[in-house]
Amino acid sequence: MKKFINAVDDVLVESLSGFAAAHADLVRLQLDPHYLCRAQKAQNKVAILSGGGSGHEPLHGGFVGYGMLDAACPGHVFTSPTPDQMLAAAEAVEAGRGVLFIVKNYAGDVMNFEMAAELLPFDHATVLTSDDVAVEDSTYTTGRRGVAGTLIVEKVVGSLAETGADLAACQALGEKVNRRTASMGVALSSCTVPAAGRPTFDIGPDELEMGVGIHGEPGRRREALRPADALVGDLLAALLEDLKPQPDSRALLLVNGFGGTPLMELYLLYHAAARWLAERGVAVERSLVGNYVTSLDMAGASLTLCLLDDEIRAHWDAPVHTPALRWGR
Amino acid sequence: MKKFINAVDDVLVESLSGFAAAHADLVRLQLDPHYLCRAQKAQNKVAILSGGGSGHEPLHGGFVGYGMLDAACPGHVFTSPTPDQMLAAAEAVEAGRGVLFIVKNYAGDVMNFEMAAELLPFDHATVLTSDDVAVEDSTYTTGRRGVAGTLIVEKVVGSLAETGADLAACQALGEKVNRRTASMGVALSSCTVPAAGRPTFDIGPDELEMGVGIHGEPGRRREALRPADALVGDLLAALLEDLKPQPDSRALLLVNGFGGTPLMELYLLYHAAARWLAERGVAVERSLVGNYVTSLDMAGASLTLCLLDDEIRAHWDAPVHTPALRWGR
Repeated sequence: MKKFINAVDDVLVESLSGFAAAHADLVRLQLDPHYLCRAQKAQNKVAILSGGGSGHEPLHGGFVGYGMLDAACPGHVFTSPTPDQMLAAAEAVEAGRGVLFIVKNYAGDVMNFEMAAELLPFDHATVLTSDDVAVEDSTYTTGRRGVAGTLIVEKVVGSLAETGADLAACQALGEKVNRRTASMGVALSSCTVPAAGRPTFDIGPDELEMGVGIHGEPGRRREALRPADALVGDLLAALLEDLKPQPDSRALLLVNGFGGTPLMELYLLYHAAARWLAERGVAVERSLVGNYVTSLDMAGASLTLCLLDDEIRAHWDAPVHTPALRWGR
Repeated sequence: MKKFINAVDDVLVESLSGFAAAHADLVRLQLDPHYLCRAQKAQNKVAILSGGGSGHEPLHGGFVGYGMLDAACPGHVFTSPTPDQMLAAAEAVEAGRGVLFIVKNYAGDVMNFEMAAELLPFDHATVLTSDDVAVEDSTYTTGRRGVAGTLIVEKVVGSLAETGADLAACQALGEKVNRRTASMGVALSSCTVPAAGRPTFDIGPDELEMGVGIHGEPGRRREALRPADALVGDLLAALLEDLKPQPDSRALLLVNGFGGTPLMELYLLYHAAARWLAERGVAVERSLVGNYVTSLDMAGASLTLCLLDDEIRAHWDAPVHTPALRWGR
């Protein structure tokens, strides 16, 4: 295993500590139990809280800040955070208007966030994200997996919360965005979990995993490597089959790298995807290209489409000020 | 070779086209000859122009925009751009105050920018960056290589240019930043150039290349893989030996990934580096962590230290509005 680490058991705390030190103007790290929250506690708004296994950076800690999350709970690599983390984070950031959990649909995360919710002394609600159209049920999931589309839910709901909207409105918008968002990914290599020390799965030099999950879970099938245009067409066809957009739909296109794929290739995928969509009457009105919801060092990428309406687009465009997404102020 | 590409000959134009489409609010792409410039031409300032081989994204195109570059000329992968690109870009962005070229010290880039400069009908000057302390002279270089510190030169000089400073002042500040900046990198894997189709160099499962160049050029020596803390200590010792900071120096610390290394590891390196520096009386006052000056899909990272003074720090903090760096407005 070739990674920049010291002891395997220290990877998470050392990485979180570096993250918090590098972004001390924006975030604060609390240890035992671990959570990241805004450096300045927000007042008089619904507290938006997410979390999940580590190894997907910048998700979720990179999205803590104005216009997005109030706190994020990092579990160990590819392992759910625990209810005590969520409770401590919620108590730190709740500001009199209740707490909304945004949770990717994996069995462990769902169970632990539910346990925390039962113990919360505040009004609370949960949005489960399930944007991965690749498979129903998977290694760690009953139902569809929540993947890169989760960051769109976090951005849009985070913006609404800043306006002073109530808990029910934040939950409703999050569920709307999730319904209108679909993702699918493809892996060219496996990731390597530090504690395992070897690749999660084997993949041949001419193979790819179509529909891979963000923990290296199996997707739809093992396929032959082929040109980017063909891959993009297959991914987008799956997304449109799920979303069934109206003619003249407008979309946000997210081209997300899994951590080991360079920007040069991600922009090439964006070029192919935008052309493919234009030929089918889907206008890409907003876009984001980069490594945002990663799988450690996996080479690969996912495409996410969110069908925009005026409300979602306005909240996407609204100012955000976090370590990993920053615009508008 | 497992990459998201179509035909090898089309990689550059497809990737540039995707980049320009995804950031149409900030940049505009011109083809034949190829360059990227700001979507809105700046007026009444020195035009800051850079460029170099592709494969280092987001350098340089990702730094085109307010507060940084006016234009960038992308060559083919790891190949210098040609003088006609630089001339066309300079003519497009010159605004009556002259043109400053910021050029990484590689023989091909230096030669081609010199040829362009001789033909330029404007006042012009050049800053050569040479921050890589690993080796004197290398595969493509006479003298030290210009690497990740180049982005600090581009940011700081770009900010000064926005104030209306003249060409000589911009050049002088660029040279000062270059003198106060040192970098060294380490590779865990090779990169794979698309046109070559196989890794640039072989490296064993327990080896690393200490002092690697950003094209996979040899560094100081092949060494055994070891913990991150030890690597960071070796890299920083080399930087301090070069910079010889005064006691109580203040620094900008850039932890730069080479494209195949995830954020989790980069933040772990940052944590190790900030601690090591604090123990030696160097205060990290500013920082940047991410994949900024990459080598295609190479796994690895470099550390860059820039010794701050009030002038450099103020220009680092000044607003910047580019695809890859954005803060302050």
